[in-house]
Amino acid sequence: MTSRIRRFDLKLTHTWRIARGTGTSVFPVVLYELTDANGITGIGESAPIARYDESVDTVEAFLGKVDASRLSFADPAAGMRYLDSIATGQHAAKCAVNIALLDGAAKIARQPIHDFLKLGFTEGKHITSFSIGIDTPDVIREKVRAAAAFPVLKLKVGTPDEESNFAALREMAPDKPVRVDANEGWKTREEALRRIEWLARDGHVQFVEQPMPAATPASDWAWLKTRSPLPIFADESYHNAADASRVADCFHGVNVKLVKTAGISGAHEALLAARQQGLKTMIGCMIETSVLISAAAHLAELADHLDIDGNILASNDPYLGPTSDRGVISFAAAPDPFGLRIRPRPPG
Amino acid sequence: MTSRIRRFDLKLTHTWRIARGTGTSVFPVVLYELTDANGITGIGESAPIARYDESVDTVEAFLGKVDASRLSFADPAAGMRYLDSIATGQHAAKCAVNIALLDGAAKIARQPIHDFLKLGFTEGKHITSFSIGIDTPDVIREKVRAAAAFPVLKLKVGTPDEESNFAALREMAPDKPVRVDANEGWKTREEALRRIEWLARDGHVQFVEQPMPAATPASDWAWLKTRSPLPIFADESYHNAADASRVADCFHGVNVKLVKTAGISGAHEALLAARQQGLKTMIGCMIETSVLISAAAHLAELADHLDIDGNILASNDPYLGPTSDRGVISFAAAPDPFGLRIRPRPPG
Repeated sequence: MTSRIRRFDLKLTHTWRIARGTGTSVFPVVLYELTDANGITGIGESAPIARYDESVDTVEAFLGKVDASRLSFADPAAGMRYLDSIATGQHAAKCAVNIALLDGAAKIARQPIHDFLKLGFTEGKHITSFSIGIDTPDVIREKVRAAAAFPVLKLKVGTPDEESNFAALREMAPDKPVRVDANEGWKTREEALRRIEWLARDGHVQFVEQPMPAATPASDWAWLKTRSPLPIFADESYHNAADASRVADCFHGVNVKLVKTAGISGAHEALLAARQQGLKTMIGCMIETSVLISAAAHLAELADHLDIDGNILASNDPYLGPTSDRGVISFAAAPDPFGLRIRPRPPG
Repeated sequence: MTSRIRRFDLKLTHTWRIARGTGTSVFPVVLYELTDANGITGIGESAPIARYDESVDTVEAFLGKVDASRLSFADPAAGMRYLDSIATGQHAAKCAVNIALLDGAAKIARQPIHDFLKLGFTEGKHITSFSIGIDTPDVIREKVRAAAAFPVLKLKVGTPDEESNFAALREMAPDKPVRVDANEGWKTREEALRRIEWLARDGHVQFVEQPMPAATPASDWAWLKTRSPLPIFADESYHNAADASRVADCFHGVNVKLVKTAGISGAHEALLAARQQGLKTMIGCMIETSVLISAAAHLAELADHLDIDGNILASNDPYLGPTSDRGVISFAAAPDPFGLRIRPRPPG
């Protein structure tokens, strides 16, 4: 096997004009390709999370240490054990390799990854939310208007401006279902409960992600879970399958991201483990290309909710994969029948 | 003469971490180099203004039409007449050529541009404001804290959130002098007067830029000028020297930008014309490299106020030029004694 590491700067669709000029926001990711002796290529991606001390620099450094000759499409699990022998942690970096291994393995089996994993994929059933980035209320209103076709929105709360931000969203979308991400923003169980009660009064909020810091004691989480009028989902409190039993007493559901679980295999386990504990499941994402988004979509049958819009927020996704018109994730027009079902976007 | 056109992506210092990833904002500019038969090089820059329908694409298209063999460091004025024969308008594009011509001309004269123009430059006297970009109140507070060393700030107003933004700034800098830019944001003379009266009550606001749209009738401007408790400055209402007499009845001062005046020569005229009309003067900027910032700094003796921080807001300025520690614009350590007094930043 040979490998190729490539950094790519994703640009957000949303450009902003200020008195000082016209800006675009750039989010770097790392793409990783493996090619075997028969010319079969698998591709993977890393969109690192600063919260876990990973960046495109740490990802490139880790991937640079990987000896591709020790990886094989015939045994992805052995490949992951080899990666763990190089370093602990570094889940976003390992994610890129895992996706590439599964892409190649499923291509050799001449199956899409969802069939290779025996999950299947039902068309028309899987809907992603669309994230409204925090900005000035003016820009929030504009973004909500632009997202009119999406049936479910997601908004960050847990900041001093949460009420005016939520109000700006509601001005443009009075009764659209919204999920909110508090992103560890509320500091005590009482504050969290008060804010969740405020959100519950809206009548159209589905659930609340990560109301308090991950370091909050389990007893406070359990206190909040029994009282919360809305389901609470673990994001920073749920990394992988090993956390499932601990989280079951504290949350109603979990947000699984491939860059937290070191790829598709870990996410598959994390979703199954959560369901075994009776937890609801969602799959989340970062700003990422159709490589990571497609990898997540292949696991959709194991998710109660999808939040995989990271490629739609970018203007220069270098790959074509599943579509998400009106939020419906579909492989019906996906360019390749096997593996991730993606293809490089033709120029122009 | 030969020319070289080069696009450069300036990245803002301020990176932002969101749940979806870590982003950087990118503002493209165009650099333009002229080299004569003796190997003397002049460099210029364009940071186009979308408000005037210019972009890096239109700038590159215009510069691509310029036949450098028709330009000469010996006669910048003739060069500008040649540019006007190619197309009207396109001031940001022409600015790049004008700066390159003056840089080369002053280098041949073995003088800094400010002496070549017989203006001089007094060290220790010229202070730039530091702009606080509009963002969430949280980020505004963080930016104002980071700008503690700068003696004067600038803030955008004229938006629905102006009061909370201004309050966020004042939390971190209770009595620092602030100039504000309404950027055509208030729609009637009564609204503008009411907002300026609110700002005047703060006691530390220096002046207000462009309170109403440039298309506002002169009679409304005159009405506002006689009643405003703070000086009002024209930005979108003042393009170049030809506007000076019209603007004198409407404003107390003008904001001159090199990308509006087609470069140093036009800015020089625009500043002199404004002063002849009894107007106060300031020099402004876009997000730009030390090429444009240095070009503006050479005109500092003609400005009552400077707002030339565009290079400080960027993390990857490819040039070294005048410094701006604590807001003080200084050529004391500028790398080259002649022309713009800039040099490419050494790698690393």
